[in-house]
Amino acid sequence: MENFRIENPTVLHFGRDVIKNLGRTIAPIGKKVLLVYGKGSIKKNGVYDAVMEQLKLIQAEVAEYSGIKSNPVIEDVDAAAEIGRKFQSDVILAVGGGSVIDSAKIIALTIPVDFSGWKFIANQTIARKAVPLISVLTLAATGTEMNQFAVVQNHTTKQKLGYGNRLIYPKHSFLDPQDTFTVPRDYTAYGISDLVAHAMENYFGKGDASLSDRFVYAIIKEAMEIGPKLLDDLTNYDYRAKIMYAATSALNGLTAYGRVSGDWGVHDLGHVISLLYDTPHGATLSVVYPAWLRRMKERIPGRIADFGRNVFNAKSDEETIVSFEHFMKSIECPVRMNEIGIGYGKKTEILETMMHCKVNGSNLKLYKDDIQMILEFMYSA
Amino acid sequence: MENFRIENPTVLHFGRDVIKNLGRTIAPIGKKVLLVYGKGSIKKNGVYDAVMEQLKLIQAEVAEYSGIKSNPVIEDVDAAAEIGRKFQSDVILAVGGGSVIDSAKIIALTIPVDFSGWKFIANQTIARKAVPLISVLTLAATGTEMNQFAVVQNHTTKQKLGYGNRLIYPKHSFLDPQDTFTVPRDYTAYGISDLVAHAMENYFGKGDASLSDRFVYAIIKEAMEIGPKLLDDLTNYDYRAKIMYAATSALNGLTAYGRVSGDWGVHDLGHVISLLYDTPHGATLSVVYPAWLRRMKERIPGRIADFGRNVFNAKSDEETIVSFEHFMKSIECPVRMNEIGIGYGKKTEILETMMHCKVNGSNLKLYKDDIQMILEFMYSA
Repeated sequence: MENFRIENPTVLHFGRDVIKNLGRTIAPIGKKVLLVYGKGSIKKNGVYDAVMEQLKLIQAEVAEYSGIKSNPVIEDVDAAAEIGRKFQSDVILAVGGGSVIDSAKIIALTIPVDFSGWKFIANQTIARKAVPLISVLTLAATGTEMNQFAVVQNHTTKQKLGYGNRLIYPKHSFLDPQDTFTVPRDYTAYGISDLVAHAMENYFGKGDASLSDRFVYAIIKEAMEIGPKLLDDLTNYDYRAKIMYAATSALNGLTAYGRVSGDWGVHDLGHVISLLYDTPHGATLSVVYPAWLRRMKERIPGRIADFGRNVFNAKSDEETIVSFEHFMKSIECPVRMNEIGIGYGKKTEILETMMHCKVNGSNLKLYKDDIQMILEFMYSA
Repeated sequence: MENFRIENPTVLHFGRDVIKNLGRTIAPIGKKVLLVYGKGSIKKNGVYDAVMEQLKLIQAEVAEYSGIKSNPVIEDVDAAAEIGRKFQSDVILAVGGGSVIDSAKIIALTIPVDFSGWKFIANQTIARKAVPLISVLTLAATGTEMNQFAVVQNHTTKQKLGYGNRLIYPKHSFLDPQDTFTVPRDYTAYGISDLVAHAMENYFGKGDASLSDRFVYAIIKEAMEIGPKLLDDLTNYDYRAKIMYAATSALNGLTAYGRVSGDWGVHDLGHVISLLYDTPHGATLSVVYPAWLRRMKERIPGRIADFGRNVFNAKSDEETIVSFEHFMKSIECPVRMNEIGIGYGKKTEILETMMHCKVNGSNLKLYKDDIQMILEFMYSA
């Protein structure tokens, strides 16, 4: 077991109508609020109005930046930061899913400087300060509401990269399961795929942390039990709440304490698919994971079988992989490339972009032949 | 699922030699350190010297209070607070197990006032401020290192009471599994019994929180796998580390989020045994729990069976209880009164004290006939 520190500064407000505490939470932090959101779904489901009511209560001055894409791009980050800089915002309020909050995290770093936020993500400079960030989450998936990570795309450099920094933990995050009632069936499922993948990326990381492994099993078993029920009952409060809390728990540190690192090879591979074809993140993960597991069968057979025994009651590594596919199918997530409409003819382009992006995993290193085999499995029958 | 907030302010420093960060952690908080510890075991195992070296590094002024008992008493709390008050200490450093840290938590509230700390515990007054507390943990058991709870005895009023207040979270806690190497076999086992009981008290609380239930299973299964191995290999770093982290996780909020409350009836019953006969806390819990479960069999049969199926692979509520006893025996913890040397002749005294202490559970209310039956089970063959 590795040394670790538990020090997660995000205050998580979870449950029915927690938005009612938003105003009094923001007031002591700042008056000039940069409100960041996506393509407007929050205007349809009432969340925008509820947020504005809170901001009015505390007589906040508000500047808005909307239109963040579901695979967020650096152009939006830089444009929003420009607005925030001119407005001299002293707090950022991100209302939306992972893409909005991830973008807001980099906006928080970019407002105080005079260059593109990409320099932080590409590790070309070191962040020294951040505008305080508060989030209102409307999609259960990425766990960004309680962690220090962000993922953003850059189409100029053809990269989709993850970034981590303690400065970008949200100060407060508000999670009302009711705000996820209008998330459609498919994106609800992709969120579940995403949270399961986060737990697995930690499980397949480096180091012996058996209690963290058990927390991984717990989270995935929760997703397996609740996920299919939720897809059949999208406005069930308890199902929404349980998936929402599972998503936060999958990537707020709990599945990582005591490890050297997570793996994140599957995420790296999936990011390339999203970058090239704008495929939803969760859908890329459910396609890549079985293929990655098949490639890793010989390298880490015991580890895969242990996972399968504890999560699926599976008797072998192959049975584990089939069980994983079965689970993904039970929540209507794709497990092969044809199900996300990407033909075999794209294989070379994908491989080349993966090599260009230096996709190489972390704990379990990926070389060109690994990636080729994984792609073959992704296209297999 | 109930609304909840995750906001645990304790920074947990976990692992080998984390004590090396103690000095630089204390320095910005205060210069005048009230050092609180127990009966001197930390002078034998080197922890005292390591702590003093850190305090010297930052040229701290130190006042000491030692002799905290393993079932801590309010007299020590008040005497230590008196010293801290005269010394004008601006930080408290508690070095020891749960009794030392629990005492230090109430000392932290008592230094700023001019009356006994018992007034806080007995809810006769409201705490308004606390001297900042830092802990160095030397026994894996109570979870006090990362929570807002303390338990103290008062022999004058014949009470052992729990108390909770956000003011008494330690600011930082240092957990080096090496510092628990010298904990003897029996107290190591009592610590495991205690952490298991904490997870169960939450499980048998009120409200539907299925992911928190799964975290309970995870923690107990970890204790079941590692506990017996640790008892056979008391200086094994990984076993010590895993039990230590399990103990923290059992009562730092993780097993409680989403519930209305925990139960704590078993703790209330156990506290009376400790109060009367100075029985180690963990040993009282392993005796009371099977008896409590037998009494609750008819009230919550499904809940007990679910627990048993998930933790012990048990097929019924009775099989669950027998499996629990089997687990406790596997770590050499007592499960009947004769094993802790309390004869049947004491039954009336115990019952009377339980009634005097108003032991009545929380989620699952305990009435006199419940307590009588539980006592009978505790004395049964």
